[in-house]
Amino acid sequence: MTNCIFCRVIKGEIPSTKIYENEKVFAFMDIMPGAEGHTLVIPKSHHEKMLSVPSEELDALMKAIQKIAAAAVKATNADGFNIHQSNGEAAGQVINHVHFHIIPRKENDGLNFSWHGKKAEIEDLEKIRNVIKDNL
Amino acid sequence: MTNCIFCRVIKGEIPSTKIYENEKVFAFMDIMPGAEGHTLVIPKSHHEKMLSVPSEELDALMKAIQKIAAAAVKATNADGFNIHQSNGEAAGQVINHVHFHIIPRKENDGLNFSWHGKKAEIEDLEKIRNVIKDNL
Repeated sequence: MTNCIFCRVIKGEIPSTKIYENEKVFAFMDIMPGAEGHTLVIPKSHHEKMLSVPSEELDALMKAIQKIAAAAVKATNADGFNIHQSNGEAAGQVINHVHFHIIPRKENDGLNFSWHGKKAEIEDLEKIRNVIKDNL
Repeated sequence: MTNCIFCRVIKGEIPSTKIYENEKVFAFMDIMPGAEGHTLVIPKSHHEKMLSVPSEELDALMKAIQKIAAAAVKATNADGFNIHQSNGEAAGQVINHVHFHIIPRKENDGLNFSWHGKKAEIEDLEKIRNVIKDNL
């Protein structure tokens, strides 16, 4: 897509610190990293949200994520990593081209992705579960 | 695995609010939800970390995630959703059986997954990129 920043990164019209590329996938360093080794993995074809990515592209993305996450953890001597993916502005999506974050993690690195969940009532879970099932 | 909580959930030895199940995948409501409709999607076979999940199981997981995320967003009238996945205690992993979080999001819901990234120096990105590439 002409105006999409990530489509232009893929084409090389906007510079990036590329890590990896194959027929379906492109990976590069996040320019606003949350941690050393923070990587973005994106499909080469333009999809705004994760829901519309075809299975074979998701498959290629996940394979690349496994490969790159292992390398990023080794490269940064990290203790673990997160995969994070946002759909919609309310979810924190800024660029409207599907992207998966790989974020290497270390003990006490100050990052916090927890959501302070409180134990739910089973009845409440069952109610919303039933509505979700109706929408499957 | 006998002592794994999620393996026991799959077997029905520990109760859960199940949403969906197929040959490879099991999905149920998170009992400590960060948002209404917060769902966990897990492989039926035991893998501690995402790196060791075989491609065909990842493929099944992603297909299930697409299906359930769409339904959870509809069911909760959400504006978007996050997919979040943690590997290792340092990354916030509590149960050592791979799990993907689907978290429906609404405007101003108070959740915050941002990492306050600061714009990195290209030289620093290139340095770490080179080490990641060496480890690919």
